Amino acid sequence: MFDKQVYISRRRRLKQQLGKGLLLFLGNEESSMNYKDNWYHFRQDSSFLYFFGLDKPGLAAVIDVEGDKDILFGRELTLDEIVWMGPQPSIAEQAAGVGITDVRPPAGLADVLKNYKGLIHFLPPYRPENIQKISEWLGLSLTAVKEGASVPLIKAVVAQRSIKSGEEVRQIEDAVDITAAMHLAAIKGARDGMTEAQLAGTLQGIAISGGGNLSFPTILTVHGQVLHNHYSSTVMRTGQMALCDAGAENAMHYAGDMTRTFPVGKRFDSLQREMYDIVLSAQEAAVAALKPGILFRDVHFLAAEKLVEGLKEAGVMKGDVKEAVAAGAHTMVFQCGLGHMMGLDVHDMEDLGEPYVGYTDELKKSTEFGLKSLRLGRALEPGFVVTIEPGLYFIPELMDLRKSERKYFDFINYDKLEAFRSFGGIRIEEDLLITDTGSRLLGKPLAKSAEEIEALRG
Amino acid sequence: MFDKQVYISRRRRLKQQLGKGLLLFLGNEESSMNYKDNWYHFRQDSSFLYFFGLDKPGLAAVIDVEGDKDILFGRELTLDEIVWMGPQPSIAEQAAGVGITDVRPPAGLADVLKNYKGLIHFLPPYRPENIQKISEWLGLSLTAVKEGASVPLIKAVVAQRSIKSGEEVRQIEDAVDITAAMHLAAIKGARDGMTEAQLAGTLQGIAISGGGNLSFPTILTVHGQVLHNHYSSTVMRTGQMALCDAGAENAMHYAGDMTRTFPVGKRFDSLQREMYDIVLSAQEAAVAALKPGILFRDVHFLAAEKLVEGLKEAGVMKGDVKEAVAAGAHTMVFQCGLGHMMGLDVHDMEDLGEPYVGYTDELKKSTEFGLKSLRLGRALEPGFVVTIEPGLYFIPELMDLRKSERKYFDFINYDKLEAFRSFGGIRIEEDLLITDTGSRLLGKPLAKSAEEIEALRG
Repeated sequence: MFDKQVYISRRRRLKQQLGKGLLLFLGNEESSMNYKDNWYHFRQDSSFLYFFGLDKPGLAAVIDVEGDKDILFGRELTLDEIVWMGPQPSIAEQAAGVGITDVRPPAGLADVLKNYKGLIHFLPPYRPENIQKISEWLGLSLTAVKEGASVPLIKAVVAQRSIKSGEEVRQIEDAVDITAAMHLAAIKGARDGMTEAQLAGTLQGIAISGGGNLSFPTILTVHGQVLHNHYSSTVMRTGQMALCDAGAENAMHYAGDMTRTFPVGKRFDSLQREMYDIVLSAQEAAVAALKPGILFRDVHFLAAEKLVEGLKEAGVMKGDVKEAVAAGAHTMVFQCGLGHMMGLDVHDMEDLGEPYVGYTDELKKSTEFGLKSLRLGRALEPGFVVTIEPGLYFIPELMDLRKSERKYFDFINYDKLEAFRSFGGIRIEEDLLITDTGSRLLGKPLAKSAEEIEALRG
Repeated sequence: MFDKQVYISRRRRLKQQLGKGLLLFLGNEESSMNYKDNWYHFRQDSSFLYFFGLDKPGLAAVIDVEGDKDILFGRELTLDEIVWMGPQPSIAEQAAGVGITDVRPPAGLADVLKNYKGLIHFLPPYRPENIQKISEWLGLSLTAVKEGASVPLIKAVVAQRSIKSGEEVRQIEDAVDITAAMHLAAIKGARDGMTEAQLAGTLQGIAISGGGNLSFPTILTVHGQVLHNHYSSTVMRTGQMALCDAGAENAMHYAGDMTRTFPVGKRFDSLQREMYDIVLSAQEAAVAALKPGILFRDVHFLAAEKLVEGLKEAGVMKGDVKEAVAAGAHTMVFQCGLGHMMGLDVHDMEDLGEPYVGYTDELKKSTEFGLKSLRLGRALEPGFVVTIEPGLYFIPELMDLRKSERKYFDFINYDKLEAFRSFGGIRIEEDLLITDTGSRLLGKPLAKSAEEIEALRG
């Protein structure tokens, strides 16, 4: 936990931002796996963590803006629970640690909400039990709750959480360092004959050993063209590349998120190497372009141009590079976005909505294939933390579809593309802090060039 | 997946058991961590797995008993999903693999339920989104859904799932072998100065590498007296014992569940060793008593007597052993149950309710402290798989409470108990199959005696 002044000042700023109203924050509950009491690891809501710091299930809080009151609702342990879970600080003691003195039993929350005469603001709930609770408390249908989140509150929270403080950046770097250790283990540990799951298990073990957990389900696959292929019992073989997109969140739940692609054997083959270097040049160009004021959407286009340039040299694409990107031809091989914000969530504040986090009232997200997967488009500001993760993904189903639609014939040499039908995918990803003048790589550097990767393969 | 005949015959038997009605089975959805699309690892509902075999989110099924129809409801992937998740067998192909030919889109389920004139049976839902769905479909309040599960269906499912087939036992042994590998790594890997989380992470990595995941959140703690203390950043120190209660579920989601307690240094000290041998003798006596027909509750009492006997010799308890157990004096140090059923769930079928799984209409669970935590009391049958896990837990808060209540003064030497205030806890646990004549240890044997444990500590 940070010092209690951090939480007090975050809440104070929120009151100043909103001006009036009652702000409702729901912490998360335990989540059941295959029966009620067999739980997934507990994950607190990130905005609750940001403003209230307490990492326990079953909590809720309200901020009464006009009354200048912060109230925490939570239950003390019973003797049975102490037998099963051990003695713990009281809720009041925990609350004091984040600067809250008004602590009440959970049952009091419904009354506070019922008796409040002004507007009650809440963030978009994403867990079914929290949707249900708000529905009951506020007398709204489930649909009304899903659509009824407060835009002013969302915007105020996004404004604060988007700019990472120095102490937050230190936490993120801690998470990125654990993340880098995971990737180092993957690059060094992969062997012909090993299953994807074996290697993914080792990585998850490192994340947990680091004091937190995974920040998202690991993608570790020799079928890297499948963007969200997690891992499976597929056996990895020499000649294939393994794409590993994985990250840890540290003990304070700040995220890391990196990707490396490496040969299952000792070396990339020549085509793999050629494509790897294209992705690397796009990734480096995008990183070099980062600075306050630039639209992240434009950095995305820059990376797309670098990919097209490289593929032109390789004979796979043709025509004018900028025209190709304007026509969306790059989405044949780069179907997703260049990156996203990162912080307490790996896709930071995704629950609050991309229109507010990644875009603005003036710059709306495109609905086009490719751009619709770009989570971040807005102008960068000092204190933003972003991922840069271009890639090349050769998806046979998409190649067939676009060819049958007769799309991109001016920009793609479809006959040359055939050679990539079983090529797979390559992605390279790093985490960066936007500084006053440019950007700074977060975490200790990890092997990134093909030579550095191959050196680790022994 | 098992052969489709397995699933067909399980469903056929269910129809015979129920005789009439419509049986509704809900698969699980993805569960969100910190935003909607950041998911915990998917865990299918175990009864859905048992009768329908399909390990994917978003499925549901009904069995129309009179109509002799098995219908699966599921959605085919969109192109977008294929780009993100890769090509997959169609729902119809997957259904064929478990002997189902009638496959419909999810939207059809509400109609089938609405148009059915007879009784609709469903199992107790334990995830909020599934409670909501049933509530909407059947027009019941959330409370009515929570209380409205079908006792005949529960009993029919319990009757089948309680008796493990040969192919199920092989799966369980696979899970137990992975579990034993986790424990071997823990016993060999623990070092003074290591955090509990470091070791727990390694174990989770082994579980995932095994093709499945953890079967429950790992308990790995130097404070073993706290029964559900998972693991933390606590540094383990020579002189302490680490209690590790952990298990894997294998790729088919059958569970393993074992406990070992070992010194963080190289050897148990003399008091630790004395207590360890008491727990071991109780564990071995309980295992030796296992056979068809015996009440598991009586095996629990037998283990409790062995613990009291040992503590009498150690001077901590006194008086008549059977009287002490009858009075509940053993619950000062053995507050929980001896074990539970294990199968597709580590606490098998816990979602279906202990009154049906662990007890019978004739033998109800006691509400007394100690016995209320005994999940299994009923007479054992060949094919049951159970855990045997006695322990000794010295809980200062409970010692103080019982002393202040002036309880158990005839059986406990409270002055001697003082020496155990910071002793911790010991548990030893194995998984056993009830055979026609007794029991059989599942999985490859793992070091269990103090000598064997110490030999692994080097």
